Amino acid sequence: MHRRTLLRPDGRALHLYARAPLPDDLSADGLLLAPPRAGSHLRWHPLRGEWVVYATHRQDRTFLPSAAANPLAPMHDPALPTEVPAGPWEIAAFDNRFPALSTGGGEAPELPVPTRPGDGACEVVVFGQDPTASLGSLPLAQIELLFEVWGDRTRELGARPEIQYVFPFENRGVEVGVTLNHPHGQIYAYPFVPPIPARALALQAEHWAANGRGLVEDLIQEERDAGTRLLYESPEAVAWMPVFARYAYEVWVAPTRAVPTLADLLPAERTAFARALKTVLLKYDGLWGTPFPYLLVFHQAPTDGRPHPEAHLHIELYPPLRMPGRLKYLAGTEIGAGVFTADTLPEEKAAELRAVPVTLA
Amino acid sequence: MHRRTLLRPDGRALHLYARAPLPDDLSADGLLLAPPRAGSHLRWHPLRGEWVVYATHRQDRTFLPSAAANPLAPMHDPALPTEVPAGPWEIAAFDNRFPALSTGGGEAPELPVPTRPGDGACEVVVFGQDPTASLGSLPLAQIELLFEVWGDRTRELGARPEIQYVFPFENRGVEVGVTLNHPHGQIYAYPFVPPIPARALALQAEHWAANGRGLVEDLIQEERDAGTRLLYESPEAVAWMPVFARYAYEVWVAPTRAVPTLADLLPAERTAFARALKTVLLKYDGLWGTPFPYLLVFHQAPTDGRPHPEAHLHIELYPPLRMPGRLKYLAGTEIGAGVFTADTLPEEKAAELRAVPVTLA
Repeated sequence: MHRRTLLRPDGRALHLYARAPLPDDLSADGLLLAPPRAGSHLRWHPLRGEWVVYATHRQDRTFLPSAAANPLAPMHDPALPTEVPAGPWEIAAFDNRFPALSTGGGEAPELPVPTRPGDGACEVVVFGQDPTASLGSLPLAQIELLFEVWGDRTRELGARPEIQYVFPFENRGVEVGVTLNHPHGQIYAYPFVPPIPARALALQAEHWAANGRGLVEDLIQEERDAGTRLLYESPEAVAWMPVFARYAYEVWVAPTRAVPTLADLLPAERTAFARALKTVLLKYDGLWGTPFPYLLVFHQAPTDGRPHPEAHLHIELYPPLRMPGRLKYLAGTEIGAGVFTADTLPEEKAAELRAVPVTLA
Repeated sequence: MHRRTLLRPDGRALHLYARAPLPDDLSADGLLLAPPRAGSHLRWHPLRGEWVVYATHRQDRTFLPSAAANPLAPMHDPALPTEVPAGPWEIAAFDNRFPALSTGGGEAPELPVPTRPGDGACEVVVFGQDPTASLGSLPLAQIELLFEVWGDRTRELGARPEIQYVFPFENRGVEVGVTLNHPHGQIYAYPFVPPIPARALALQAEHWAANGRGLVEDLIQEERDAGTRLLYESPEAVAWMPVFARYAYEVWVAPTRAVPTLADLLPAERTAFARALKTVLLKYDGLWGTPFPYLLVFHQAPTDGRPHPEAHLHIELYPPLRMPGRLKYLAGTEIGAGVFTADTLPEEKAAELRAVPVTLA
């Protein structure tokens, strides 16, 4: 992997990645700049025990621009600045123009609840140069490179002292609020371990202490033994619908080894992980013959400087549709009480996805 | 309050409530019946530490029927059966035809994770006979009666040994997935304390142990002192936007006294609670001159037979819109990590709502 880092006049970093060496003349000159902004701050929610981020400059962010104004396309016309230059890069990562979190951005107000500045980082990851592609349609080698980029970002962001958790994700589809169609994801780097991974890590640590084995390792073994919910299997990686799936088409993807973070994947594991993920995404799009919306989130070990033998890197995919065109709404019981009600059984939905033929390029 | 309970041939109970005595000739004859169904079951999600409900018979439930087929309207034509009879009742509560939870409904399968039957109850609460009304447009006396009904349901469902938590809520608007426009809410009665109230109660218990005062009592006092986020105030009840609001227009409503459950409200508290809630709902609808979608959820003490001095009954209202026609999507950071990002400050949004004039009938 080759990487070139450029700095914009607005102070935002831009990292360009490719498998081949990158030319020397790549430049950030004339690229899109961020507007001046106030920093964000955090307020403590005392009945949920979690931080809430207030980033008021985000209210006016870009919303489904026309193709001509696609800010994630390589810039070819100085009159239409974008976020990334022309050139032979394959993947780009850069500081979000409207970051929910950024270190040194601002001060927190004094309030009846604890507050703190919204330190951290928010990056955009452009998956490729073709605005009509999707993550699942990318060549395997490009998805492998993307795993390397995610690992590089995890290493670099995680090394910053104020950052305790690096969280790459992709929101796909207008159903989940996507504002730009160009294939891309985001990375949030938090100054704390967020509540959902924190809870998962605590439960994994309990399992580790009780059994001397990883919880996700055990779940994977059980799925391999059962077989009925598996969507992809190799010695290095698996994809499966968990027996406790909350969304109709929820799928998890993981290396079989208890790899703690994206930065710790071995080359053969990246290859298998890419194949497993591409298999799932092609099955999604093939299921109803239409682009399948989803949230894709990574769970990995915190970068808090402590060892995390309990952590097991994996992807969780949450598709919002339960039937063609029919959303699973999160309403009273899910949002208010935290109890998901599924209308379908994982076994039936796994069988549907298993039946979708996939050919990996 | 007067109540009459009828039983349908399908075994589902129907409770009719009114301020005046109800006539003797009310009958469940010919009302809509539930189809035969398999029971639901629960599976344990080991990385979230919570139960997930699988209720496959819900997949085919009613979806925005035409007005003629409104199942919540009083039945006037035997050829068009509905859920409720004609008669002078004001509020009705009955077992959901497609319950996610129901005691004795079924057996749980053997799986690699813990499972159990989906015991509990799901009720529908019809707020009135007029299909074009809304909760906020009901007369104050009717909203007061509704609080009495919610209290009655909490008492009756909470007394069942398998039920540990009674959770009334309202989903309003197609934006949150409402499938019937007739003004109504639901009650889920869980066989466990759900994760979100469980977490809130644990944090309230910590505060209670440390301070000898209720956390919500202290929050209310701070809001009354500050004044800027208050939407309604009386000696018995308040409505306010919390300083840590996650949704742009999130509002909480509570009695000022630390009342544990809806069944414990005194008459004067019900009156004030109704006035506070109606004030908020009229401000919502007045803000943009259009029906304002929201989730309304109650948090109250569990019915697990233990004392809960830390609990303080309150309503939390989560509107999904952050601007007219613009949804706040819950995506990667909210759903995957549990970190809410707000684009707006509670102080600004509280000022908007405070400025909306309201006249209580």
